[in-house]
Amino acid sequence: MMQDLSIDKEFSVEWTHRLRCTRNSLQNDGVVSQIISEAEPPKILVTVDAGLFQVNNDFVSNIKTWIDNCNTVCNEALVVAGGEDAKNDDSVVALILEAINTHGMCRKSVVLAIGGGAMLDAVGFATSIAHRGLRFIRMPSTTLSACDSGVGVKNGINRFHKKNFIGVFSPPWAVINDYDLLDSLDDRHWRSGLSEVVKVALVKCPSLYEKVKTNAVALFNRDRDVMAEIVTDSATLHLKHITDSGDPFERQEARPLDFGHWAAHKLEQMTSHELTHGEAVAIGLAIDLQCSVLLGLLNQTVANEAIALLQQIGLPTSHPLMNDPELFDGLEEFREHLGGELTLLLLSDVGKPVEVHELPESLIQQAIQKLG
Amino acid sequence: MMQDLSIDKEFSVEWTHRLRCTRNSLQNDGVVSQIISEAEPPKILVTVDAGLFQVNNDFVSNIKTWIDNCNTVCNEALVVAGGEDAKNDDSVVALILEAINTHGMCRKSVVLAIGGGAMLDAVGFATSIAHRGLRFIRMPSTTLSACDSGVGVKNGINRFHKKNFIGVFSPPWAVINDYDLLDSLDDRHWRSGLSEVVKVALVKCPSLYEKVKTNAVALFNRDRDVMAEIVTDSATLHLKHITDSGDPFERQEARPLDFGHWAAHKLEQMTSHELTHGEAVAIGLAIDLQCSVLLGLLNQTVANEAIALLQQIGLPTSHPLMNDPELFDGLEEFREHLGGELTLLLLSDVGKPVEVHELPESLIQQAIQKLG
Repeated sequence: MMQDLSIDKEFSVEWTHRLRCTRNSLQNDGVVSQIISEAEPPKILVTVDAGLFQVNNDFVSNIKTWIDNCNTVCNEALVVAGGEDAKNDDSVVALILEAINTHGMCRKSVVLAIGGGAMLDAVGFATSIAHRGLRFIRMPSTTLSACDSGVGVKNGINRFHKKNFIGVFSPPWAVINDYDLLDSLDDRHWRSGLSEVVKVALVKCPSLYEKVKTNAVALFNRDRDVMAEIVTDSATLHLKHITDSGDPFERQEARPLDFGHWAAHKLEQMTSHELTHGEAVAIGLAIDLQCSVLLGLLNQTVANEAIALLQQIGLPTSHPLMNDPELFDGLEEFREHLGGELTLLLLSDVGKPVEVHELPESLIQQAIQKLG
Repeated sequence: MMQDLSIDKEFSVEWTHRLRCTRNSLQNDGVVSQIISEAEPPKILVTVDAGLFQVNNDFVSNIKTWIDNCNTVCNEALVVAGGEDAKNDDSVVALILEAINTHGMCRKSVVLAIGGGAMLDAVGFATSIAHRGLRFIRMPSTTLSACDSGVGVKNGINRFHKKNFIGVFSPPWAVINDYDLLDSLDDRHWRSGLSEVVKVALVKCPSLYEKVKTNAVALFNRDRDVMAEIVTDSATLHLKHITDSGDPFERQEARPLDFGHWAAHKLEQMTSHELTHGEAVAIGLAIDLQCSVLLGLLNQTVANEAIALLQQIGLPTSHPLMNDPELFDGLEEFREHLGGELTLLLLSDVGKPVEVHELPESLIQQAIQKLG
């Protein structure tokens, strides 16, 4: 007669996070060739964000040369939709799955994706579910993805009008930040991602915060060396958060890197992505900074300085729709996506985050009025 | 001026594999309630395989009582397609995603799926990609899933006529083997999964192999206690392989549990799933046992005994389509799904696997002729 059996057994899965920050990555023996040759992939699929493909002639020519020199099955780069369109339906995911199947790519093969955060999210998701995951190399082409999401372990697409409703945690094989790629961005997108730098600096790194303050004018004026240094610092902080925080797959309720994000995600959706993610985060940071002050956690002067810094860099800190009560739905959607108790990160000082578990609507309204 | 930066940083993600083997799991304070209360999920979605729902009245009544007694948002169980149909298109996945969205379920919520391996694979995939993964509890309702795939860390659906082309590695929150569920299976499905027991015993556990031999007649005659004991042993071996082998997410080329599977996967597809997975594995094992002999690795007597054992349990060891040269395509498809070099596991004795990297078609043909 069988006895009941009960086993609880722990096990772990090991990953390596590889980050390269450089320029000229596509030259002979450049970083792209180095990373690819380390991976020894049987096949390679190169995918390029349509937005980048249209505006960056240098890059298009470099990638073509690289593909010609590289012994791959892919005769030309696959150009796919960029921007939030890449995530709003299944079409990019379907295209990548089909290419992986057509080229007969296996689990050790590499998909190299070059583009903005949304395109990297969609291509990364497809790559992570084909054969339960091919090797994925991200080359972020925007400030935003270079300093933030491109370094992360998440991917996904939107469904039911909810951002990232579908996705998986799946560490990339490698992330290559080639800062030459940022040169072709327009001013708005060049600056947009800096809100994520200000965020990670406010939460985790007073010295980076000081560096951004010192260089605010240079950043506004597109100093490419300053930008490369600041983005490298931000990418490194994001990477360390993933590898060292003990919670890379977000099982805990606290998400330290989501400061300002509950309002940001909702504002993106409310404006039908007219606001970029970076711009929405800047506004979200401003709201949460003022909330921190109103809760008696943060000194008003520190909040004002941070908001002024966002503005100096050229980022918005208010939007007409932030007065729409629909914004408050963002709190519950944020909680639902994470799970468990509502946990928001606010600030008591630069480098000193505080967790709170509720934020009254009246207080948020007051915070918004101060930004009006 | 920025210097190039290069970071390679290792990190790990921890999981707990929970396995319960029991009967009467739905009674008050039974294993289902215990596991659920440990998880403290904000919401629960119960999904049931249509095949099971139609034939097992006891179970349907028990699950309804359990849901009534349980303080959950789900008023009735969601019945979804079972069998390979569950995996042949996106419809089951879409249904589960929609239910998760409609019920406002978060990442800490639980999806409990009760059914056969294909249904568990499809529901598990949907659960793993919603909000990047809710908690998934499997209750296998077939011998096959109870002793093998139900205990695994994989899920997925078919695409491009390729089995499991889409899927992820995602350890379940828990696996509950309630052997009462097996009672309603017809003889064919009751026996079908035993091929996976013979497989894991041949590869890893001579004592289990002896136990199956001793109990072959009892198994053929549906002795439910013997079945429960044998399946528990098999499930435990599969679990230990995942937690202790050092390669839970199959990064290596060798897959010790895939003995006999290259031909099995192809035969399932060639017969349009007229053969069950378990039956196809029995034939695949017979082929690979004979190949092992022909390569001079294995004693003919040992192979004959193992093939006879499969037959005594009531499993097939040949099929007209195994003579179709299309079968050989299974080798390349197997390699492509795993990636890297072709790596097949053959046998030099019970409990003594051997890796080989090629298998000539002429040798496979000879092996098949011996089974004719």
